[in-house]
Amino acid sequence: MKVEYINPFLTAAISVFNTMLGTTLTRGEPFLKNGTQPNHEISGIIGLSGKAKGMVVLSLSREAALSVAGIMLDSQPQEINSDVADAVGELTNMIAGAAKAKLDHLEMNLSLPTVITGKTHCIDFPKRTMPICIPFDCKWGPVTVEVGIVE
Amino acid sequence: MKVEYINPFLTAAISVFNTMLGTTLTRGEPFLKNGTQPNHEISGIIGLSGKAKGMVVLSLSREAALSVAGIMLDSQPQEINSDVADAVGELTNMIAGAAKAKLDHLEMNLSLPTVITGKTHCIDFPKRTMPICIPFDCKWGPVTVEVGIVE
Repeated sequence: MKVEYINPFLTAAISVFNTMLGTTLTRGEPFLKNGTQPNHEISGIIGLSGKAKGMVVLSLSREAALSVAGIMLDSQPQEINSDVADAVGELTNMIAGAAKAKLDHLEMNLSLPTVITGKTHCIDFPKRTMPICIPFDCKWGPVTVEVGIVE
Repeated sequence: MKVEYINPFLTAAISVFNTMLGTTLTRGEPFLKNGTQPNHEISGIIGLSGKAKGMVVLSLSREAALSVAGIMLDSQPQEINSDVADAVGELTNMIAGAAKAKLDHLEMNLSLPTVITGKTHCIDFPKRTMPICIPFDCKWGPVTVEVGIVE
């Protein structure tokens, strides 16, 4: 994956968390995801296709997902349910949409988001993709954005 | 989701398992996925976008995934690793590609496949999607295909 594709997703995540949730994301060092690192408990995932194709994953700790959903739904859920999943999916959609707008030469379209829950789930990209994981921290705990795109 | 979108995925799964793996899939009754049913241990997922957008999920038991990978890789893996994930992703890609060809009026493109592993993972579609789960059985155990598409 080209390094210049990372920045639009990094800035989109920071911007969406700031605008939609009033929360600051602090970024760590992006690294190459090799498939052995488990994701956080809840992951929103959305497909990209066009002149390039790929997937974007937003992965959140349980606490972060519940807090995100509390703000987006305007009422605090106590457990991970389909409303929380919808909120995480919508947040993933916003981040992918904002990043896509900055990569308009790739003429990508977004799929529907889906949301994966499970304490030990792990999301693998195809090996040739060389996906990048961008770790973030926020007041609700860890958040990661993973991107794999090939032209 | 329109009912006429289900059949292309159903026949694509049966055809790909037959052609690529020499294995017969026996179909059960499709049902509306409500988000509470956990997926099997390994799921390939691929996004669709165009005049309609959605996601397709191929979910396999551990034994089925290892057997699929054994045939596709031409050597039998003993555990779920990145080669198995790549094989499941490729199989998902073939099923989605065959179904897309039969839905060409929707002008959909495929994203990259990704593969989710985890004993208790659950994949949620957005509520408004009304995703359908098609359960299958084969000699290696249960297999499901889930599809959610909106125009």
